[in-house]
Amino acid sequence: MTLDAVLAQIDSDLDASIDRLKDLLRIPSISTDPAFKDDCQKAADWLVADLVSLGVDAEARPTPGHPMIIGHVGEGAPHLMFYGHYDVQPVDPLNLWNRDPFDPAIEDTPKGKVIRARGACDDKGQLMTFVEAFRAWKTVHGKWPCKITFILEGEEESGSPSLVPFLKENAPELSQPDIAMICDTGLFDRDTPAITTMLRGLLGEELTIKGADKDLHSGMFGGAAINPIRVLTRIIASLHDETGRITVPNFYDGVPELSNSQKAQWENLGFDAKGFLADVDLSVPAGEQGRSVLEMIWSRPTCEVNGIWGGYTGDGFKTVLPAEASAKISFRLVGTQDPMEIRKNFRAMVESMLPQDCTVEFADHGAGPASVMSTEDPAFEAARLALTDEWPNAAACIGSGGSIPIAGYFQEYLGLPSMLIGFGLDDDQLHSPNEKYDLRSFHKGIRSWARVLDALTQTDTA
Amino acid sequence: MTLDAVLAQIDSDLDASIDRLKDLLRIPSISTDPAFKDDCQKAADWLVADLVSLGVDAEARPTPGHPMIIGHVGEGAPHLMFYGHYDVQPVDPLNLWNRDPFDPAIEDTPKGKVIRARGACDDKGQLMTFVEAFRAWKTVHGKWPCKITFILEGEEESGSPSLVPFLKENAPELSQPDIAMICDTGLFDRDTPAITTMLRGLLGEELTIKGADKDLHSGMFGGAAINPIRVLTRIIASLHDETGRITVPNFYDGVPELSNSQKAQWENLGFDAKGFLADVDLSVPAGEQGRSVLEMIWSRPTCEVNGIWGGYTGDGFKTVLPAEASAKISFRLVGTQDPMEIRKNFRAMVESMLPQDCTVEFADHGAGPASVMSTEDPAFEAARLALTDEWPNAAACIGSGGSIPIAGYFQEYLGLPSMLIGFGLDDDQLHSPNEKYDLRSFHKGIRSWARVLDALTQTDTA
Repeated sequence: MTLDAVLAQIDSDLDASIDRLKDLLRIPSISTDPAFKDDCQKAADWLVADLVSLGVDAEARPTPGHPMIIGHVGEGAPHLMFYGHYDVQPVDPLNLWNRDPFDPAIEDTPKGKVIRARGACDDKGQLMTFVEAFRAWKTVHGKWPCKITFILEGEEESGSPSLVPFLKENAPELSQPDIAMICDTGLFDRDTPAITTMLRGLLGEELTIKGADKDLHSGMFGGAAINPIRVLTRIIASLHDETGRITVPNFYDGVPELSNSQKAQWENLGFDAKGFLADVDLSVPAGEQGRSVLEMIWSRPTCEVNGIWGGYTGDGFKTVLPAEASAKISFRLVGTQDPMEIRKNFRAMVESMLPQDCTVEFADHGAGPASVMSTEDPAFEAARLALTDEWPNAAACIGSGGSIPIAGYFQEYLGLPSMLIGFGLDDDQLHSPNEKYDLRSFHKGIRSWARVLDALTQTDTA
Repeated sequence: MTLDAVLAQIDSDLDASIDRLKDLLRIPSISTDPAFKDDCQKAADWLVADLVSLGVDAEARPTPGHPMIIGHVGEGAPHLMFYGHYDVQPVDPLNLWNRDPFDPAIEDTPKGKVIRARGACDDKGQLMTFVEAFRAWKTVHGKWPCKITFILEGEEESGSPSLVPFLKENAPELSQPDIAMICDTGLFDRDTPAITTMLRGLLGEELTIKGADKDLHSGMFGGAAINPIRVLTRIIASLHDETGRITVPNFYDGVPELSNSQKAQWENLGFDAKGFLADVDLSVPAGEQGRSVLEMIWSRPTCEVNGIWGGYTGDGFKTVLPAEASAKISFRLVGTQDPMEIRKNFRAMVESMLPQDCTVEFADHGAGPASVMSTEDPAFEAARLALTDEWPNAAACIGSGGSIPIAGYFQEYLGLPSMLIGFGLDDDQLHSPNEKYDLRSFHKGIRSWARVLDALTQTDTA
């Protein structure tokens, strides 16, 4: 009955909840670009002020990068830790947005109302689902459901460089909770909620191939002088074989085959592989031959070039033979693949392909292993049933192609299991122009957390 | 004796000549970038005013792009046409310049004084050598040496899109001269002047490979969705085989072998291939196996990637799977290679390598065949001897890796032979940061033209 009151409070407060989310979305907290450092601080301060207004003992603690928000509040078991991140991806190419990415608005679309802005889903909209659930709970109950710790990060979109040192330094404080609730994942589909139990890891590499000591005239030197773009493209073209497998030596060490039961469960999900690709105007799965699309995005490792540049890239034409060419490359990892070993083997492979007149420089853009959650804790089943109560279909345990290394770090440095629940959709345009969050995701997301909190506090006291 | 007076006038007026060149260099007439359109007009107006001040009937005639300067003056045989271009290359990467590229200055270097600025050599410094030679001639003689026509172009660095239509339209007027003198080439070395008799052609292509209809999250879609960067790098990597030969079908149709006499003449030049490469910090000739460096840059065709871009190229890291990737590619052509045929075969080859889910868009950045001058006209030998009088070593007839399709166009559309004389050096950093022109090139270049004019007018009247 009190759950019903909380749900009613959520429904009646929805407009105000949307206004608060819009306030947060107006702050361009792009963590990877130093030009937005002050905005990251501003977003952190905004969240701290909101948590403090709810009675949380919260502060934005400095790190070498952007601040880490830590907050404590409430009493009683279980002790839950809630994680989200307040930083967002860059917005380029800006010309492809249908509005200013930091001027959020509600838009009507054929699939319903959406909140359009950078970070609307990833991850400001998602983290505000649990903040709003707590606000409603506090309003109805006058107190918090149990002991809660918040950890809200500001560097998730730029490889989380400060996170592990921070967890290590604050382990006595942050290892107290029983479980971490991470809100940065998606629904399985529009009507099917999900707990994500497999996450791919991520290794980020940048390489710059250098040839002559300056840019050259391609007429005067073309033919005789090595072209670093040619060297770079040859290296990148060799990273996959004809069957789509990645050719870095020993790359597949630690890549597990799916168990038959997992395979069966995923087949039962009724995933529409054709529709998934057709949504982005594609039709042919581009990964390893003989694998299903769900395997390609959930349980198989990848190697993708995320950026490439060299020479003249402006309007018109310039017959330059450039001195260098660069690429940003990421590997998604699964099972027990070792990011450090793969980095070493990748770099050795690149170096072995360099012509005598070329050198290479590498930059490190983070490395995190894959995570596979243990779902034996009864809290998982309680949460799954609570989600099932809110949505049309029963909740599923699924994999995710994205990388949220935080779950692995919580396990490794704090000894905490994690539960990943989120409400994003495949068409939310994360990291792309015109990012959005369905109003339904936001609204039912807040309601879902109220149900999960209710279930977990009852489970625990039962 | 009057030649000596002209040379003395050139020497005594040198400081003023430098000041005039600096004025022209201050105008950022970058033809390829629409942002500098007004500056191209300004450079044209500056030159017209200077020519008019010398008594030339000159005007900047409009084209669909930048203006074409046409001027007529003088009487008597031979009728010489002088060609240069007032537009310059872009200046990026700007941070590698040791000064503002459009704030010219005289600098002392270990190899002597230089004029540093974008366009100092290519081609404002070069075209001002003949303008200054005429100025001195006029001052001493009170009249012009013979009938002269000027054609100064503003689109040479951006593929000369307006040139051929202009030549066709004005053929009755512009086909009157006996020979075209083109000043846009180099010395053979510091002490050896040169008439360039072989020029490579140039074909400019831009291609954009498109995959999904938007940028995607490489976690959510990575593995399943095609990455256009991967497709582009695979295509570019396949453009050369293991021996450095270009793989476009029928590419080598029309590529001649050097005659034994040409080979012998080039071997006698004493070209320092090691030093040529070492000057830019390289040591291994990167072209076709079994060819000399001089062949690679003068008489063999090339395929170079001048620019490549796709995905996220800013600071930090963005795990995007981009919707498209692009490259600018140029082919240097020799002999009777047909640019249109090569364009057709290149595009067909690219299309044949596209996966089912990708499309390609091409843009045309100009196409000009190679030029081989006939040196039978006695004016060639007269000019060669005049150059020999000015410089320490005898003048040589050489090839050039660069592409100055204008010579081919003058032949094709006006029926005019061309003579290419210029005073640039390999280390002038054309198209690169810190472009310069040796003061010695500028000074002896002006003197060289006075000697050539003297020789050609005497030859003709002899």
